[in-house]
Amino acid sequence: MATVQEVVRAAEDKTSTRPTMKAIAVLPGQPDSVHLAALERPRVEDIPGGRGVLVKVLRVGVDGTDREINAAEYGAAPDGYDFLVIGHEGFGQVVEVGPNVTTLQAGDFVVATVRRPGTSIYDVIGTNDMTTDDTYFERGINLRHGYLTEYYVDDAEFIVKIPQGLKDVGVLLEPTTVVEKGIAQAYEIQRRLRVWRPRKAAVLGAGTIGLLAAMALRLRGLDVTVLGLTPRPYLNSDLVEALGARYASTRELSLTDAARAHGPFDLIFEATGFAPIVFEAMQALGKNGVLVLSSVTGSDHRIEVPADKINLDFVLGNKVMVGTVNANREYFEMGVKDMAQAEAQFPGWLGRLLTHPVQGLERYRELIETLTIAKGAIKVYCEVA
Amino acid sequence: MATVQEVVRAAEDKTSTRPTMKAIAVLPGQPDSVHLAALERPRVEDIPGGRGVLVKVLRVGVDGTDREINAAEYGAAPDGYDFLVIGHEGFGQVVEVGPNVTTLQAGDFVVATVRRPGTSIYDVIGTNDMTTDDTYFERGINLRHGYLTEYYVDDAEFIVKIPQGLKDVGVLLEPTTVVEKGIAQAYEIQRRLRVWRPRKAAVLGAGTIGLLAAMALRLRGLDVTVLGLTPRPYLNSDLVEALGARYASTRELSLTDAARAHGPFDLIFEATGFAPIVFEAMQALGKNGVLVLSSVTGSDHRIEVPADKINLDFVLGNKVMVGTVNANREYFEMGVKDMAQAEAQFPGWLGRLLTHPVQGLERYRELIETLTIAKGAIKVYCEVA
Repeated sequence: MATVQEVVRAAEDKTSTRPTMKAIAVLPGQPDSVHLAALERPRVEDIPGGRGVLVKVLRVGVDGTDREINAAEYGAAPDGYDFLVIGHEGFGQVVEVGPNVTTLQAGDFVVATVRRPGTSIYDVIGTNDMTTDDTYFERGINLRHGYLTEYYVDDAEFIVKIPQGLKDVGVLLEPTTVVEKGIAQAYEIQRRLRVWRPRKAAVLGAGTIGLLAAMALRLRGLDVTVLGLTPRPYLNSDLVEALGARYASTRELSLTDAARAHGPFDLIFEATGFAPIVFEAMQALGKNGVLVLSSVTGSDHRIEVPADKINLDFVLGNKVMVGTVNANREYFEMGVKDMAQAEAQFPGWLGRLLTHPVQGLERYRELIETLTIAKGAIKVYCEVA
Repeated sequence: MATVQEVVRAAEDKTSTRPTMKAIAVLPGQPDSVHLAALERPRVEDIPGGRGVLVKVLRVGVDGTDREINAAEYGAAPDGYDFLVIGHEGFGQVVEVGPNVTTLQAGDFVVATVRRPGTSIYDVIGTNDMTTDDTYFERGINLRHGYLTEYYVDDAEFIVKIPQGLKDVGVLLEPTTVVEKGIAQAYEIQRRLRVWRPRKAAVLGAGTIGLLAAMALRLRGLDVTVLGLTPRPYLNSDLVEALGARYASTRELSLTDAARAHGPFDLIFEATGFAPIVFEAMQALGKNGVLVLSSVTGSDHRIEVPADKINLDFVLGNKVMVGTVNANREYFEMGVKDMAQAEAQFPGWLGRLLTHPVQGLERYRELIETLTIAKGAIKVYCEVA
């Protein structure tokens, strides 16, 4: 296998006089193809209209999506490349901005959004997370390189500033936006009720997303019950309890029983990745309640469900279920606010989620292995710089 | 069996000097107990605060709920009675109003709402269709007498005026409100999208509710596909096509194929009473779409569903599903507007839904039998006066 120095030198020879940099990439369609690639270092001028922001990458989180892309379940390379740089949970520092960027400056800590606009009306109005296009452009996921590299450049429109006080946990912003969008969609939907003062919520799953959902719901003052698989006590249940929320293992308390004991649930946030629980949640949801689905479930499990009962409960209870994918800029901004409030209300809590750092892009193999097999990992991330 | 005259005389003997009247009632809990009851004729003074409106009943529609109440599947008698007067789809004419009623007068055609307020915040703000109380008070259904009688009295708050020009179809207002609430909830929910211009809708079921849903969606300018069981042509498919909508039988075109041919569906309105199609609809729904469930499915059918696939589609497509039950005053008012627009846009169409009149309360047996066995019935109703 070539050394890093050899990879970089080879790329420099092949291309131009522009300096190159390292990146963690996959060959889409080829399982377990994660490798160290080299690509040209971007320049602020690459973005038209003087709107470019050149960012030095500091940390990048990885999650199930990265694992699935490396398993060749999805992901596509950008035009002109046979590889895709992965990593969509970025955190970095501005190096240089174009002449028409007024909101950011060199030295600012930043996180970039993931999806880039397509052509539908939802893309035009700045809500590309709601695109009706068939093709998505997502940095680190589909047709656009990600952040597991040394530098990236993008339009200031897609780059969100992180306050100094959040720099140690800024890498958690992207996963937080999943939660922010889901909860914001729920509240938007519930405007249909004129008055909605949710009191009790359930979060299904105690991984990174489940924990962040519990955090965001506690910040909104709800009584929160988190259901995970593992019996307490362990790190995740400790983190739930540190928020003043309740943790239970589904091995000891089913969702249905949890609803009886701790409901009715005005909101249920599903973040397990286990689809059968969605159908149990449809029934466990309280009257006028809203069930938010955020898990990507790529398998093909079939289960038996009480069809009449689920439908009847939905009708008689005026219930709602909503799916949520991706997040646009406004949810990144909401996430910053919630993370700031969390640091004020639960000091140090966010930092406890950063369980598994891996040093340097060169350790790409260790990064993916830690993501796949590490016991007790909450957030696995690469310390790039 | 006692004659009507005997029943009425017996009631008059038993009670007071107040005149009595006939009513179609059931003995809750006792299957097939439909019978002719007698009860005191109400007076405008029965309602406190001078807010009473005394209404002479002209027509009352019946539906599956009446059939199920007669089958003792649900329904409860008001306090002090062992019987429940059924009929919740009323239409009548004001006889007399209390001194503090300014919005109605004798001679006005009217329809009364069904649910009466409980104690939750939703009842307090006038949206008792969204009550979170465990006990519902519903005229003709639960704990309150219905409209299959000669007169009723109620607070002006619950009585909606019908324009002269709609008097021949006014008995269709209550079923129309099911559709109005479902569609209004969908539009309220879709405010989450900032911009929502639904173009294509599917209506599942071509009974009274399905036909009225197709009407309401056509009035909003959507391209509408109605899926029924029976192959075209027959009265219901003719009615669908008279609206400029498309009819297909699920024996010839599945919902999934209909979505491929005539979708993507921005809105699906479910009105079949057959719960399994709900789970097919979850998948057939387009991106950012909304699925409205309006069927009461009291049985206990279990089916196998592709759990991962349904969840994934909801998440990646930002989809919503909402259940809807009952309707408050505002939906009755919307229904009046839509019925007026329908008469302007599709003259005579509503009247064609009134397929099966039954003359007089005395023919209660024929009324229930027609509801149960008549082939090709759309709306079965009693001509009371």
